[in-house]
Amino acid sequence: MTTCNSSCAPLSQPAGAEALSRVTRWQPGFQWQGVPVLEYQRTEGNWCGISRRMLIGDNAEATGFHVRYFEIAPDGYSAHEEHAHVHTVLVLRGRGQVQLGETVHELNFGDVVYVAPHEWHQFRNTSAAEPFGFLCIVDVKKAP
Amino acid sequence: MTTCNSSCAPLSQPAGAEALSRVTRWQPGFQWQGVPVLEYQRTEGNWCGISRRMLIGDNAEATGFHVRYFEIAPDGYSAHEEHAHVHTVLVLRGRGQVQLGETVHELNFGDVVYVAPHEWHQFRNTSAAEPFGFLCIVDVKKAP
Repeated sequence: MTTCNSSCAPLSQPAGAEALSRVTRWQPGFQWQGVPVLEYQRTEGNWCGISRRMLIGDNAEATGFHVRYFEIAPDGYSAHEEHAHVHTVLVLRGRGQVQLGETVHELNFGDVVYVAPHEWHQFRNTSAAEPFGFLCIVDVKKAP
Repeated sequence: MTTCNSSCAPLSQPAGAEALSRVTRWQPGFQWQGVPVLEYQRTEGNWCGISRRMLIGDNAEATGFHVRYFEIAPDGYSAHEEHAHVHTVLVLRGRGQVQLGETVHELNFGDVVYVAPHEWHQFRNTSAAEPFGFLCIVDVKKAP
């Protein structure tokens, strides 16, 4: 008899199997059917109120990129960081800000952000009420 | 003295230059500031009423993927086709359908579609009134 506990891994393709075509349903509140809500990142750091959902990348998809949905709670922010790999962002929910270098840009639905290699950046939700959510697409093989 | 004509290429980075960080603004009607509306694809085929916008990929970005926005006019459809490279789609505007193999799925805002290698597929706008728009992310180096 198998048992289940509260920290079950999500159902996914058997190891080694190629992903089949599929539709993953969006649901009100920016949940996607069968897509678990994950921690922002594993490392400690100066960030606050962020969750992560893997829309493409955790199920043996044949892509060289991952598509993630990040959501920042009111008054939350991502780490202020820089690295070699680039970020590509498209805003889906609410509004917020991105700091690119020394410049702060207001962000609304549909806005696209390209973060170049080694650019210092931070995403912030300046709203007191609404989550700020965006797609972030990255190459699987990140630059060092 | 330089001249300009009606088929000017969009302004972009000088050849060989790396892309700088940037914000590309979404505008009502699903236009993005400075992003031209392009043909769906260059080849002839059985498709109708589709436009394409390159959100990431035409400006020397350091990504292994391209992010495109496709929009299908009312009653339009993409080519019914299959190929080795996969598609990753997220719906942004309106509603429509995707056929994956023999199965037709209704699509609405936020739904994610993964089209596996060599899966026959077609996107359709079944609305008589509203455009059906979606992101489509692909690897730059497509599988043969």
